[in-house]
Amino acid sequence: MIKLDFGKMGGLVTAVTVDYDNGDVLMVAYMNEEAFQRTLETGIVHYFSRSRNKLWKKGESSGHVQKVEEIRVDCDLDAVVIRARQTGPACHEGYRSCFFRTVSPAGELVLHPERQLDPSEIYGGKS
Amino acid sequence: MIKLDFGKMGGLVTAVTVDYDNGDVLMVAYMNEEAFQRTLETGIVHYFSRSRNKLWKKGESSGHVQKVEEIRVDCDLDAVVIRARQTGPACHEGYRSCFFRTVSPAGELVLHPERQLDPSEIYGGKS
Repeated sequence: MIKLDFGKMGGLVTAVTVDYDNGDVLMVAYMNEEAFQRTLETGIVHYFSRSRNKLWKKGESSGHVQKVEEIRVDCDLDAVVIRARQTGPACHEGYRSCFFRTVSPAGELVLHPERQLDPSEIYGGKS
Repeated sequence: MIKLDFGKMGGLVTAVTVDYDNGDVLMVAYMNEEAFQRTLETGIVHYFSRSRNKLWKKGESSGHVQKVEEIRVDCDLDAVVIRARQTGPACHEGYRSCFFRTVSPAGELVLHPERQLDPSEIYGGKS
């Protein structure tokens, strides 16, 4: 059984969840050992909520659950990337991804309009 | 000028760097305010090394720098996703990505063989 390194961040590892469909980063959150085990056992993503200081089954109240398709770990075992099938928006603000804004070179926030179509679907190139 | 929330993690935000070419997550690291500002100003990714406790210009010794193409921020401003052009491998272990292993449903580490070709290049689908 894999042993992640929960020691660097007070009992947590960083979890990056990406969209199974297109690989976009949906959100960044954190897992303690219990959240990681529950995620492995159930196939549904669980995090540890730092603000509520407790286990957080993503989508428990909203229904916007994340079904695990693949879990990757990094070289030093303190971060995971989860490829998941996302039901509804991942972001509590209603966006598919929490990363719906870009930062301009001048350091200003720019709302990134949601794409209605992925260019790769139209042109066959990489998005 | 954007104000990130460096307060939740002792002066750091989480930085997820993805490959400009295919969107794969290359690495997860952390930035303090100086690292974020240097990244914005220079267009070259800088992190804060938690192990060395200092500013870390990625690739400074190896030459494996990351050129910023886009920076996104999440809804609560405590994480960034950087789409970058990666020179050479991102991982110090010589892999393109630090996430070169998957976790099996049974919790075992599985070396993920590097793909020689992206299926989307062959079949035109999404990877």
